[in-house]
Amino acid sequence: MIYIIGIGAGSSDLITLKALDTIEKLDILVGSKRSIESIKSIDSINSNDLNNKEIIYLSKNLKETLKEIAFDDKFKNKDIGILSTGDPCFSGLLKTMINLGVDKKDISVISGISSIQVACARLKISWDDYAILTLHGKEHNQELLYNMVINNHSVIFLPSDIKKDIEYMLNKNNVSFNLKNVDYHLKDVRITICENLSYPNEKISTYKLGELLKNIENGLEFSYMAVCIITF
Amino acid sequence: MIYIIGIGAGSSDLITLKALDTIEKLDILVGSKRSIESIKSIDSINSNDLNNKEIIYLSKNLKETLKEIAFDDKFKNKDIGILSTGDPCFSGLLKTMINLGVDKKDISVISGISSIQVACARLKISWDDYAILTLHGKEHNQELLYNMVINNHSVIFLPSDIKKDIEYMLNKNNVSFNLKNVDYHLKDVRITICENLSYPNEKISTYKLGELLKNIENGLEFSYMAVCIITF
Repeated sequence: MIYIIGIGAGSSDLITLKALDTIEKLDILVGSKRSIESIKSIDSINSNDLNNKEIIYLSKNLKETLKEIAFDDKFKNKDIGILSTGDPCFSGLLKTMINLGVDKKDISVISGISSIQVACARLKISWDDYAILTLHGKEHNQELLYNMVINNHSVIFLPSDIKKDIEYMLNKNNVSFNLKNVDYHLKDVRITICENLSYPNEKISTYKLGELLKNIENGLEFSYMAVCIITF
Repeated sequence: MIYIIGIGAGSSDLITLKALDTIEKLDILVGSKRSIESIKSIDSINSNDLNNKEIIYLSKNLKETLKEIAFDDKFKNKDIGILSTGDPCFSGLLKTMINLGVDKKDISVISGISSIQVACARLKISWDDYAILTLHGKEHNQELLYNMVINNHSVIFLPSDIKKDIEYMLNKNNVSFNLKNVDYHLKDVRITICENLSYPNEKISTYKLGELLKNIENGLEFSYMAVCIITF
């Protein structure tokens, strides 16, 4: 069985007991260097137990390695756990495995806390009041994002490339909209960007879209681990 | 500080280490009988530590008790943790507290695994491919649900009352739609209902909407802990 194990988006204490129990019984543990280190840092993990497992590191060879794990005979009948940051079911490794052709019945998924949820916890907002989008590998969602903003629909999104995502919206022909009988320009919409959530360098900042784009053009950079929120 | 602590949707092992750490340092633990029992059943929880805390049970007096905890002087300067099943930020206790007028700066939120996520883990689907809705206390979302289905948009939703939610859709004037050049009637759309996720009596079943309504009219019942999925 291949376990796709959500370890949460950020600090190692975001992991669930179920994920820890699953990791304990594995033959083989697969993950990025950062996620393996995160697991090793947990006090309640028995380090002897980890040392008894084969560990396979994922790096740039991600898809090839996952394919091998799924289809190579030497991995047959083993309990293999693949660590997935955040929730495997949101812009996560579940889809990667399905797209590689792995049969759903050979997979077991352990849910993890998504960065979307940590962002909501920090801002104390409820994600049932928002549309949730990922632009990671789904650039066509830029149009959906634009339509939501122009129609005053609150949205939380994982950016693909913040600069390009904002440019896409601000370069549209129609960049004005009406909210409660007041006309607004899209560049004046406020966006909150949460970076490195739950890590020591966590940062939450708010800009107007136009101002944000100018700042980025002048060298402002964001972590690749970012969640963006636009609230109406 | 008032901690709103997500304990996950279902079995006690869906809780995070962060939630457990937070519970340990509390002066007062607040929750439904079921959620307190769930915490007590966790092996790694120190029962002495729990016995040293004041425990307040929430039942039908939910809002009154939460209001007292938030505003009564006797709770001032205490670390109080309120257990919230699922994620406090999805159709959860965060909104209840905000609506009671509690200041966001007096609240700290610990994310938990939502039933939406467990449903996706079971069905091995990604929630970034779905619109997510709750109809719990948001009956106006019935119209949004209807519009999504009629426009072939995959959706995951927490029902308010499954019978009423389905009736709403099937009683509309326009109950036909076109998908890939084929005309469909809304009653033939398939819905998957996940009940009691992660509990021993977990059940996942799929029906056509029309058939489901008939079955309910003939006495079929569902758990109040249900997640519904419609996939196009």
